[in-house]
Amino acid sequence: MTILRKHLFDIPEGMIYLDGNSLGPLPKSVPARLARAVTEEWGAHLIKGWNLDGWMAQPARVGDAVGRLIGAPEGSVVMGDTLSIKVYQALSAALQISPKRKQILSDLGNFPTDLYIAKGLLTHLDQGHELRLVEPEDVADAITEEVAVVMLTQVDYRTGRMHDMAAITARAHAVGAVVIWDLAHSAGAVPVDLAGCGAEFAVGCSYKYLNGGPGAPAFIYVRPDLADRVRPALAGWLGHEAPFAFDLDYRPGPGVARMRVGTPPVLQMTALEAALEVWEGVEMAALRAASVALCETFIAEVEARCPELVLASPRDAAMRGSQVSFRFEQGYAAMQALIARDVIGDFRAPDIMRFGFTPLYVSEDEVIRAASILEEVIRDRLWDRPEYRARQAVT
Amino acid sequence: MTILRKHLFDIPEGMIYLDGNSLGPLPKSVPARLARAVTEEWGAHLIKGWNLDGWMAQPARVGDAVGRLIGAPEGSVVMGDTLSIKVYQALSAALQISPKRKQILSDLGNFPTDLYIAKGLLTHLDQGHELRLVEPEDVADAITEEVAVVMLTQVDYRTGRMHDMAAITARAHAVGAVVIWDLAHSAGAVPVDLAGCGAEFAVGCSYKYLNGGPGAPAFIYVRPDLADRVRPALAGWLGHEAPFAFDLDYRPGPGVARMRVGTPPVLQMTALEAALEVWEGVEMAALRAASVALCETFIAEVEARCPELVLASPRDAAMRGSQVSFRFEQGYAAMQALIARDVIGDFRAPDIMRFGFTPLYVSEDEVIRAASILEEVIRDRLWDRPEYRARQAVT
Repeated sequence: MTILRKHLFDIPEGMIYLDGNSLGPLPKSVPARLARAVTEEWGAHLIKGWNLDGWMAQPARVGDAVGRLIGAPEGSVVMGDTLSIKVYQALSAALQISPKRKQILSDLGNFPTDLYIAKGLLTHLDQGHELRLVEPEDVADAITEEVAVVMLTQVDYRTGRMHDMAAITARAHAVGAVVIWDLAHSAGAVPVDLAGCGAEFAVGCSYKYLNGGPGAPAFIYVRPDLADRVRPALAGWLGHEAPFAFDLDYRPGPGVARMRVGTPPVLQMTALEAALEVWEGVEMAALRAASVALCETFIAEVEARCPELVLASPRDAAMRGSQVSFRFEQGYAAMQALIARDVIGDFRAPDIMRFGFTPLYVSEDEVIRAASILEEVIRDRLWDRPEYRARQAVT
Repeated sequence: MTILRKHLFDIPEGMIYLDGNSLGPLPKSVPARLARAVTEEWGAHLIKGWNLDGWMAQPARVGDAVGRLIGAPEGSVVMGDTLSIKVYQALSAALQISPKRKQILSDLGNFPTDLYIAKGLLTHLDQGHELRLVEPEDVADAITEEVAVVMLTQVDYRTGRMHDMAAITARAHAVGAVVIWDLAHSAGAVPVDLAGCGAEFAVGCSYKYLNGGPGAPAFIYVRPDLADRVRPALAGWLGHEAPFAFDLDYRPGPGVARMRVGTPPVLQMTALEAALEVWEGVEMAALRAASVALCETFIAEVEARCPELVLASPRDAAMRGSQVSFRFEQGYAAMQALIARDVIGDFRAPDIMRFGFTPLYVSEDEVIRAASILEEVIRDRLWDRPEYRARQAVT
């Protein structure tokens, strides 16, 4: 039984889209649903939409829909803001748990914004915290009793290298450290079991494998037993126990609701809510099996066809997310030429050609075709041809 | 010459909408533009939309469009996040300017989220700062040399009472204090001259008088001479000098761009960008004159017709924004009955009936009609009738 449901997506004819790890394609359910939110909700109900159309409850409702894909219980995930903001909230909450410990451990493969936000927060707090960065493979050994918080992105955005969430979380808990998982490249890509692994916090975005559209809101998970204990750093009115009481004093709302900050982006979140319908009936284990098969096929095909390319992702599927990356010195130009041939991947400096595999809308057939077009691009050095050069200017 | 351009808005037939100070109505330019962004940009261009469709530059481009309505020079305003987040950014930046001063001055009429965010930030920083709250009319006298930052919402969300931005800013500067203006109820409502008054920071939202739609993004202004000096508290990757270099170290971008944080909400911001087209050719002085005329008419009509209602807004138009509020003990029930009669205002505890006046789509005629319907509601105590009670449950 295939997990492919390409008919639910609106992907341009002839395009092989291997960049769903950056921005997922448009689910067909979105345009009409969003148009309805614009004209029938905002247009016709105006201010009444907050109650009539469930706008106020949307961040929790959509949070639950995302939660089902990452093993989070009902009521433990809420949507809003951007991933950077959610990292800030999670880290400042996590630091409250063992205030005497001063080390935050992360790795050099983390997405830069997580590190920027962490350093910014620590500078801001000025309480003697230190951000320690190690190589991804050294993380487990670096988790000592000095560590307050282990803050990691599960799947490396460049290479697809994947941390063992259960093992690292267990290791952290064994020494009394708290864990924050950034699931940007995990949610909708690989099975995640937040409740099972017992991690304290998780954050992620919804415009990659969740297909929520450009700038779709982020999510945050707080382990239910902690959610009433942490004090939000960003104490916005919609995280208040009673926002419409307009009290002068802030009293945080119950559970993860306190991680709400300001007025939620209703239109943007409606697009996401409609987009999440494609997950109806999808088993994450089956999705994972299909994703591994696509990745294995692509690796085998590319290695057979393009010896110039060097696999940058782990060869062991168990250590890899749902993407495959290759190093190639002329990777930037080659990727532009590939894109001009309607095979869409992307490039990350200095030399990484990156391909995301999303079994909901990418078939085995397309993967083989993509490898064959890549072979032509490399073999014929298409990027040297003037017609491809011209294309580079606009893409 | 009238400033009325109701034909540019999609307002339900027969509705008199006096709640544009809470959520502006749908400009007719929005649905088609947003549908295009969904299908032709996201749908057809996918990841290429970031360049092809100008998504990456949108927060600055829309910021400039908002800037033109608040007297801010090109390149000094950027869109993103929510107003609560922007308050956090502005205050943490403002505190860097005179680090030895420990008092933040605000007033009891400020919107609660501004105060929550401020207290949250100060608790978080734990550097001995104090948030001092005084009555709005005592603000000027309270600006002493102890004050680091004066943080005010120009127009009171309940009463419409308006601070004199130029005078208070001048007073603050005379004693070396920094000023943050929250323009939530000012932008698109009253003339604002940020460059002229020399305020250091301003923030605001775009879903009220700017008609950007539910959850439209916020804006932040940083005075150009300061923009390169302040260190962002929320050091997100899109505020980085070179986001796509993916450096491990954060280097803030030039000017107000450093106040960008994460991936911008492209769809939501596209709705706003289209909505801003209604401002083409609008003179803020003419808008203000029309707004004052509408407010004066409403006050006169209501006072003549409904002696039970007590004006809660300043009687002097110069001290009032673009809204009028009345106190009435049964204000909640009366407002629900009024809404059932298709005159949309709103209620703020404990007893305030609030009406926003927006000359782009509200006519003198409608204002008189609204007062006359209000008279019927009050005279006949419509809220006691069962058919109006039933309506209350859903609105």
